Amino acid sequence: MKRTEIATLGEFGLIDHLTNNIKLTQPSSLKGVGDDAAVLNQEGKKTLVTTDLLLEGIHFDLVYVPLKHLGYKAAVINFSDIYAMNGRPQQITVSLGISKRFSVEDLEEFYSGLQLACEIYGVDIVGGDTTSSLTGFTISITCIGTANEDKIVYRSGAKETDLLYVSGDLGASYMGLQLLEREKRVFAGSNEVQPDFAGKEYLLERQLKPEARKDIVALLDEQGITPTSMIDVSDGLSSDLLHICKQSNVGCRLFEERIPIDYQTALMAETFNMNVATVALNGGEDYELLFTVPLTLHEKMNSVKGVHLIGHITKPELGSYLVTRDGQEMQLRAQGWSHLTEE
Amino acid sequence: MKRTEIATLGEFGLIDHLTNNIKLTQPSSLKGVGDDAAVLNQEGKKTLVTTDLLLEGIHFDLVYVPLKHLGYKAAVINFSDIYAMNGRPQQITVSLGISKRFSVEDLEEFYSGLQLACEIYGVDIVGGDTTSSLTGFTISITCIGTANEDKIVYRSGAKETDLLYVSGDLGASYMGLQLLEREKRVFAGSNEVQPDFAGKEYLLERQLKPEARKDIVALLDEQGITPTSMIDVSDGLSSDLLHICKQSNVGCRLFEERIPIDYQTALMAETFNMNVATVALNGGEDYELLFTVPLTLHEKMNSVKGVHLIGHITKPELGSYLVTRDGQEMQLRAQGWSHLTEE
Repeated sequence: MKRTEIATLGEFGLIDHLTNNIKLTQPSSLKGVGDDAAVLNQEGKKTLVTTDLLLEGIHFDLVYVPLKHLGYKAAVINFSDIYAMNGRPQQITVSLGISKRFSVEDLEEFYSGLQLACEIYGVDIVGGDTTSSLTGFTISITCIGTANEDKIVYRSGAKETDLLYVSGDLGASYMGLQLLEREKRVFAGSNEVQPDFAGKEYLLERQLKPEARKDIVALLDEQGITPTSMIDVSDGLSSDLLHICKQSNVGCRLFEERIPIDYQTALMAETFNMNVATVALNGGEDYELLFTVPLTLHEKMNSVKGVHLIGHITKPELGSYLVTRDGQEMQLRAQGWSHLTEE
Repeated sequence: MKRTEIATLGEFGLIDHLTNNIKLTQPSSLKGVGDDAAVLNQEGKKTLVTTDLLLEGIHFDLVYVPLKHLGYKAAVINFSDIYAMNGRPQQITVSLGISKRFSVEDLEEFYSGLQLACEIYGVDIVGGDTTSSLTGFTISITCIGTANEDKIVYRSGAKETDLLYVSGDLGASYMGLQLLEREKRVFAGSNEVQPDFAGKEYLLERQLKPEARKDIVALLDEQGITPTSMIDVSDGLSSDLLHICKQSNVGCRLFEERIPIDYQTALMAETFNMNVATVALNGGEDYELLFTVPLTLHEKMNSVKGVHLIGHITKPELGSYLVTRDGQEMQLRAQGWSHLTEE
């Protein structure tokens, strides 16, 4: 593959090169890349803002993450935060820190993934900052979205007796990561043997190229259902459910047997000798939507495909518990990232 | 000084600790830290968005940059981009990558600087992301501002015969950096001798605790003057003026003898055996406003204090030149950052 040193373009040349084919498609994007700030028009709607920082060696390993996938994922995880507010992502700004190790072609790959995600989700790239870094690849993306004021869903609105739903299935992304980490160890130093991922594509896709649940937000809207609370599952079902409970000042019961798990996830957990429920509860990076709706909407929810009833909300004094398959109650615990404690 | 390991708080504890005393003060900040996204209300105005990524070892050296100052500066340089659009900064999101080297107290220091800047400029912190990093300190700030549509000033509006102004003075921040770098080399390894910065406070302040020119934007507004183009001087007068010329498709004449330079800057340039005009042209990090106004507003501009007429705009075919003290014309050149080429 061709390798063009970044130094041949210089700072301004590099930014031009990466952004010159970026088109604005959203009516609310008045002015994009190329001035001190982007200009957006959000009249009559509320503006949502979310941001994510991804660091090489912490959030991704370029040994097995293709740059195009990384660009795609970096955008999608921000869109997911906007959908989790029942909003629609509209614009992103992209800041990159890049070391000399990366070529212009590498950055083109990354941008091609970013742009693909933006095309699919209908989002514009409107600004950013590109700088050199001493080590590794740093990605900071901020996403702007809009929502009608009466449709915004916070983490804090869950009420006693509300039903708890989650979209898709959980734990696959984490098992995909375990699989990639194992292959990296096995094949370290060997260029001849290619890892065999046949039959495990779903796990890899969930880890490397996750999607945000735009479809679920649209389905709920079609049915006229506004959740009382919502969050996207990024830290893990257990942590994210506790965010809802804490901010809504409620308790919950989550039923182990109802947690949706894909067959490949279960199989891989067995191979790794892991408890699949633990994987689904604490794995994270699922980017599914976890939300609550009033009990009265139970029947209406039947017409929303792709979501699963996994529990209900209780009075705060009843606490937040997982009800296991054998009827035991186990207190839910937040995991969050543990990079800082692991070091 | 007390040192609390970040691990004792954990991710969610750390975020709570750093953000629990953050108050929202802007009417447009509907919901801040603590959900998937912040919620802003910008009805009837246009939204401006800008972002900056700062990396340890590239943009700052913690050997001589106090964390409180770094927090202040990180916020202010984003405000400066919004003022450069003739807008008003309203909210920021703050993402930090932190290694184990940093304690909770260190981050409190950083946040105290951020919050001081936000108080002074009337800006709310509405979100962010905190993550661990393998090496160094990473700061990504995104700033949201507002402006009336007919008041937004782009880089692209300069017209032939427009007058070119710059606020404050130039080159001081760069000389402050040179001074700090020299003292770092001189005092490397020595804990006993303290560097003597007496008489050089202005240079240090310009480097370590710059201000954004909120006052100039307000003064222009009071006089009913909307510049035809504007940019903040971050890369250096030469580079930033060329941005205006390129995007406006015009040329310019910049008069060396009119470039405002502080006495301390000139003195320090002499000490370092540097050409002070080169320092003012290419130093950067001045965060002054560089703007153009129609020739007809010349007299009105006399009532705007703190700005200097330094040149004028020409037809594009006349090119972009510095007119030196002895009447020679030298082509202006963009410098930008050169980290990637220097490595």
